[in-house]
Amino acid sequence: MTRGSGVTEHRTRVGIVGAGPAGLVLARLLALAGIDSVVLEARSRAYIEARVRAGVLEAPTVELLREAGVAGRLDREGMPHHGIALRFSDEPGGPAADHRIDFGELVGSGITVYGQQEVVKDLLADRVDDAGLPVEFDVSGVALHDLNSETPSITWTAADGTEHRLRCDVVAGCDGFHGISRTAYDQEIAERVYPFGWLGVLARAAPTTDELVYAHHDRGFALYSMRNPEVTRLYLQVPADARDPDSDVAAWSDRRIWDELQTRLACDGFTLNEGEFLEKPGVTPMRSMVASPMRHGRLFLAGDAAHIVPPTGAKGMNLAIADVRVLAEAITDHYRTGSGTGFDAYSATCLRRVWRAEHFSWFMTSMLHRFGPDTEAGDAFGTGLQRSQLRYTVTSRAAATSLAENYVGLPHGSC
Amino acid sequence: MTRGSGVTEHRTRVGIVGAGPAGLVLARLLALAGIDSVVLEARSRAYIEARVRAGVLEAPTVELLREAGVAGRLDREGMPHHGIALRFSDEPGGPAADHRIDFGELVGSGITVYGQQEVVKDLLADRVDDAGLPVEFDVSGVALHDLNSETPSITWTAADGTEHRLRCDVVAGCDGFHGISRTAYDQEIAERVYPFGWLGVLARAAPTTDELVYAHHDRGFALYSMRNPEVTRLYLQVPADARDPDSDVAAWSDRRIWDELQTRLACDGFTLNEGEFLEKPGVTPMRSMVASPMRHGRLFLAGDAAHIVPPTGAKGMNLAIADVRVLAEAITDHYRTGSGTGFDAYSATCLRRVWRAEHFSWFMTSMLHRFGPDTEAGDAFGTGLQRSQLRYTVTSRAAATSLAENYVGLPHGSC
Repeated sequence: MTRGSGVTEHRTRVGIVGAGPAGLVLARLLALAGIDSVVLEARSRAYIEARVRAGVLEAPTVELLREAGVAGRLDREGMPHHGIALRFSDEPGGPAADHRIDFGELVGSGITVYGQQEVVKDLLADRVDDAGLPVEFDVSGVALHDLNSETPSITWTAADGTEHRLRCDVVAGCDGFHGISRTAYDQEIAERVYPFGWLGVLARAAPTTDELVYAHHDRGFALYSMRNPEVTRLYLQVPADARDPDSDVAAWSDRRIWDELQTRLACDGFTLNEGEFLEKPGVTPMRSMVASPMRHGRLFLAGDAAHIVPPTGAKGMNLAIADVRVLAEAITDHYRTGSGTGFDAYSATCLRRVWRAEHFSWFMTSMLHRFGPDTEAGDAFGTGLQRSQLRYTVTSRAAATSLAENYVGLPHGSC
Repeated sequence: MTRGSGVTEHRTRVGIVGAGPAGLVLARLLALAGIDSVVLEARSRAYIEARVRAGVLEAPTVELLREAGVAGRLDREGMPHHGIALRFSDEPGGPAADHRIDFGELVGSGITVYGQQEVVKDLLADRVDDAGLPVEFDVSGVALHDLNSETPSITWTAADGTEHRLRCDVVAGCDGFHGISRTAYDQEIAERVYPFGWLGVLARAAPTTDELVYAHHDRGFALYSMRNPEVTRLYLQVPADARDPDSDVAAWSDRRIWDELQTRLACDGFTLNEGEFLEKPGVTPMRSMVASPMRHGRLFLAGDAAHIVPPTGAKGMNLAIADVRVLAEAITDHYRTGSGTGFDAYSATCLRRVWRAEHFSWFMTSMLHRFGPDTEAGDAFGTGLQRSQLRYTVTSRAAATSLAENYVGLPHGSC
């Protein structure tokens, strides 16, 4: 570290913007390869350790975290799930039944329920507390420079008001959709906005069953999941159109939320336990987005900075971690051989898995939600297709296997 | 047969309108069960025996024709196919490669290429020439009466101008989308119109390969198939919008058709042999349609009278034959037990398979054609989904199996 003209100068090999799962897994993989990095994060450590986000880890994600030596608590506390249920009625208006997709039997694998914030906690404990490696929290005014050179740099203002510059060889943009990395160059954007959002609640209520329930109901989609033996996470499809009062969380009293959940999740033998909400209910918009290419000179985007999936397929965090695995290998290869082959292949390699996840997430979203009768997806023909897809998915072993292999995660490098 | 007031009166158990595969297979199945029927057909025998239509028989269709004892020539002359090829380039603009879907290996079954007109010929030879059972050709002015009673009837004018009335217990509406049966009552219609059609040609040209090739090309879809060792059947996606000159067959000279086929079907190791056209090229619009319910009193619709699929999944004739299998069983059951259970279940039972075929045909159509950039299916996101679906279908055994099991035909009664 050197100081001059009021700017503290730092030097590392890889500058990582964002301390979410993407940035922190990348930092860990690089550290294991003996490559030093600095992680910059706009929020505080307490904030990112408390932020409730995704909660489903694919099998390849869990394997990667194990290989990276940061899965100790995950292996103790994570909840392995060997299936999910699709809940729907065979005929419109009829009683709903559960159709289990048995991951274990179909693909010999499963998922692990473990909150994204727990992954972040584990990675920070490893990096900051155990290894004493740098993560700069509460940074502001982050800017990227000279990305088209071999000597890019990152500048920021620290929490104490001091100005800093990090000179590095590679910049990893892991700062999400609202971060600054994706604004550093123009990408081609492919996107889809869905006409609904998810109203999500976290409730102190004992789970009825362990496994996730995806309910397709005439009134809309609902998702039941458990986070731990005392906490249930629940979602309701709500309209996205601001002219519809139900798009506003203000229209949803606690009582109305429970009533709607009880209606959409009703099924013989299933009891939905109610309880107090542990956080204010909120509405998440549903969107698909892919920005390409994912590389610009020495800047590499990873995770939500480059792509968004609707949460129906539980792919967001997993995809971010798959990205940085590819990036870590490219960077390691670069330092070992001097070659830029891995850098050149990065975007195309990632985008194959990204599009697989985008397709799967779109498929799950399209199959499970209700669409308006004035749309192709929701008119008489679209509704007939959807019902046939649901029935087929739960009666054909091939179709169920296809869902299962995508849900538990295709092997890294296989897409 | 009795005559009175100028109308010749006939009596049978089942009056069948339409001598396509649906009507003739139904008549055969009923005859085997000892149930007499009369078939009415608006066209001449020569016309329906020459009309080139579909050419792919599902495995369950072949089994049914065998069980019905009308598969002698089919078994001698039909060409068993154990797979199809999906032809596309891995990256936009790149060279195309074939990806074979191996039906035999994936699902232990296959399809049989045998023209619809051959099926019709075999059924007519059996019914008319061998059994001497009635088929009335060249009828006009067909009308259905008293369908909500147990004594419905059908009236028509014969080719010689005489008037006829057929009193029966059941009317089977097997007269296609343009027939009169579907106009006898109101149905709920679910439909989708695609923004393209197929320009089809039948050429005297030796096939390059036996199996069908489904080509997804930047310029649009193309389909290669062979009919026999001297005849090739080929299709090109063309726009449906009448404002686009390419929607008109007049815009397509023979030379232009071959050039476009050569471009879209280009692939290393594949030669497309050219030859004279055996019939005038024609454009077929692409549409999906389901009319429900398929029953009204004693009238039962079957085949194209109740549902249309785009030809991409090769399901039209197969679905018609699956319908009449259900109907034959319901009628047989009715005469054996006096019960109307089979009649009551007919529509719902058929519609499950109909919707499976509709979904599969929509899936194949959506995956393989090019859609305009101003549509959801053809915008940047839709195109990315499509490419991911293509790659996934040929790299995942589960996905390939799903295509295969639908293409060769799910077992009757399994949907």
